Amino acid sequence: MSNNFLVIMAGGAGTRFWPCSRSEFPKQFIDFFGVGRSLLQQTFDRFKSFIPVENIFIASNKQYRDLILEQLPELKPSQLLLEPARRNTAPCIAYAMNKIKSINPDANVVISPSDHLILKEDVFKQTILSGLNFSASHDSLLTMGIKPSRPETGYGYIQVEADSNEGDVYKVKTFTEKPNIELAKIFLDSGDFLWNSGMFIWSVKSIEKAFKSYEAELWAKFDVQGKYNTESEQEFIDSMYRTCKNLSIDYAIMEKASNVNVIAADFGWSDLGTWGSLYDLADNKDENQNATLKGQAIYHDAKGNVVSTKNGKVAVIQGVDDLIIVDDEKSLLICKREEEQHIRDWVSEVKDTFGENYI
Amino acid sequence: MSNNFLVIMAGGAGTRFWPCSRSEFPKQFIDFFGVGRSLLQQTFDRFKSFIPVENIFIASNKQYRDLILEQLPELKPSQLLLEPARRNTAPCIAYAMNKIKSINPDANVVISPSDHLILKEDVFKQTILSGLNFSASHDSLLTMGIKPSRPETGYGYIQVEADSNEGDVYKVKTFTEKPNIELAKIFLDSGDFLWNSGMFIWSVKSIEKAFKSYEAELWAKFDVQGKYNTESEQEFIDSMYRTCKNLSIDYAIMEKASNVNVIAADFGWSDLGTWGSLYDLADNKDENQNATLKGQAIYHDAKGNVVSTKNGKVAVIQGVDDLIIVDDEKSLLICKREEEQHIRDWVSEVKDTFGENYI
Repeated sequence: MSNNFLVIMAGGAGTRFWPCSRSEFPKQFIDFFGVGRSLLQQTFDRFKSFIPVENIFIASNKQYRDLILEQLPELKPSQLLLEPARRNTAPCIAYAMNKIKSINPDANVVISPSDHLILKEDVFKQTILSGLNFSASHDSLLTMGIKPSRPETGYGYIQVEADSNEGDVYKVKTFTEKPNIELAKIFLDSGDFLWNSGMFIWSVKSIEKAFKSYEAELWAKFDVQGKYNTESEQEFIDSMYRTCKNLSIDYAIMEKASNVNVIAADFGWSDLGTWGSLYDLADNKDENQNATLKGQAIYHDAKGNVVSTKNGKVAVIQGVDDLIIVDDEKSLLICKREEEQHIRDWVSEVKDTFGENYI
Repeated sequence: MSNNFLVIMAGGAGTRFWPCSRSEFPKQFIDFFGVGRSLLQQTFDRFKSFIPVENIFIASNKQYRDLILEQLPELKPSQLLLEPARRNTAPCIAYAMNKIKSINPDANVVISPSDHLILKEDVFKQTILSGLNFSASHDSLLTMGIKPSRPETGYGYIQVEADSNEGDVYKVKTFTEKPNIELAKIFLDSGDFLWNSGMFIWSVKSIEKAFKSYEAELWAKFDVQGKYNTESEQEFIDSMYRTCKNLSIDYAIMEKASNVNVIAADFGWSDLGTWGSLYDLADNKDENQNATLKGQAIYHDAKGNVVSTKNGKVAVIQGVDDLIIVDDEKSLLICKREEEQHIRDWVSEVKDTFGENYI
């Protein structure tokens, strides 16, 4: 029996990619690049060569249950952790760790987002395996840090203690918020800062100890014998989950614990958090720097546009530059690339004006 | 029994409104303004208050048979004139006139396009009734001319003989091609020119006489006893229609006959021939002159755009000016309003690149 477990967190309902991503069908369930697999499916595929499928769990909102089982038919319903309310990552992780503890108290667990892009799959596998080895032999909370390649202002950073490393594993000095561009340049130049990928590895024993030190009450809510992997698990969760506070794992644990380490990794990572990041990543730009992410397009007198429509749909784009053009069944977005930070405001406006079912 | 008949010509497969209009679902079948009735249905509705439904015929390409019967369930299949090939208006009219002659040799017939806009329905009705009266008592080919309101370069013009009128009916001096802007201004200033609406009224007797003078061979192909309104009508048409030459009624008859008259009408007409004309007509422009023709839209920092998407779909448009934005199930067009004359080139390109089924 393998001690290696995986929890994929797939509960997000992000609006940044509206209308491509909507609350009833958010980003992780979308075949973003038109390759035939959704981001969640790609995440699952990436891990299943080295983590047994029966040790893989998906944490998400209850509303996505059928979607997950449809996209990942290899999983049994008991491998889904279904949250009846959104409470950020700390309650979700406390739930997952207690459920896994009841299966295998010696488990080492990878916590992974469901909607990121990894380009170097081999390096990724080696990095995760090395992290699992480390956490099996150290009482440590390990995060995956990404070696920065540009002064990105859209990510949080992790500062390492210089020269503290065993191989690629460093001690963490601080977690930082998203910096402004001047600070991001300083971070990049210093060589001591990594991007915070939101991916973690730890043993159940280590994270339990950390929770008991910093969020004992929250942990205790989930540390109940005889509930997990039984028919009453969902009822138990449904009855208590809403009483949990809304809390991120970073704020609850990672920024407080002293035994936090980070692997400095380089596996071609993007959190796919902005159209800008998708545009930068697109490797099919034409000679005028137009990127067709999904669907097909003909461009005339147009440059620097990023276009995503439906598979099989054709766009004819003339006379416009540097636009985001996103077309979905129920909505169409056309805006300047440099204005994408306002998308969430427009989504609110659409919701207020035309109703929930566009969001 | 009424002698008044109507032939609605609904065979066009225009690409000017691609992707809103496609060959399998062209403009006349579309609910262009989102009012719940297609342009063909609106045309039918406009006439049926004063022409008996059993005297209304629709001439179109065979491929649209089911679409027409679906949109106009009041009609029997025998009221459809189904062309197995596109041969322009002269063969179509020769067919329709012979079919109607076999029903009522004293018929007076209105020939109407299926895809025009009429804003003043009451004036329209009075004009057509007055035209039917005129043609019942005169051996004349009567066309509907529209009093021009601007130096339009997109229409053909009809020059009247000044002071030749009985009421609103003038003698026609010449038909002209679409003028350039300088000539269009002269036409407008002279007061002797009307827009050619492509709408005609004549008795079967008068048009038969004209055909026999100018296109006797074409008329003879259709002037066959015992074929019309029988089970063998379609077979007869199928067997001979392709042998007809491709010819417009203007070129075949109207520009040659000497007994051509025109009614100077003013019933709020547009041929809906360009996005520009639709944009000009739109009465729901916002304070930044954005016109949402179909669907719903939110605009930010955007002006002078014309947007047509699907009913129920929402567009968010930011940072763009003076664009045509047309969204259809399979295609999306975004281009400068001033470049719409190139749409047919792009449609050809889409056809060549992605195939027939986008057109």
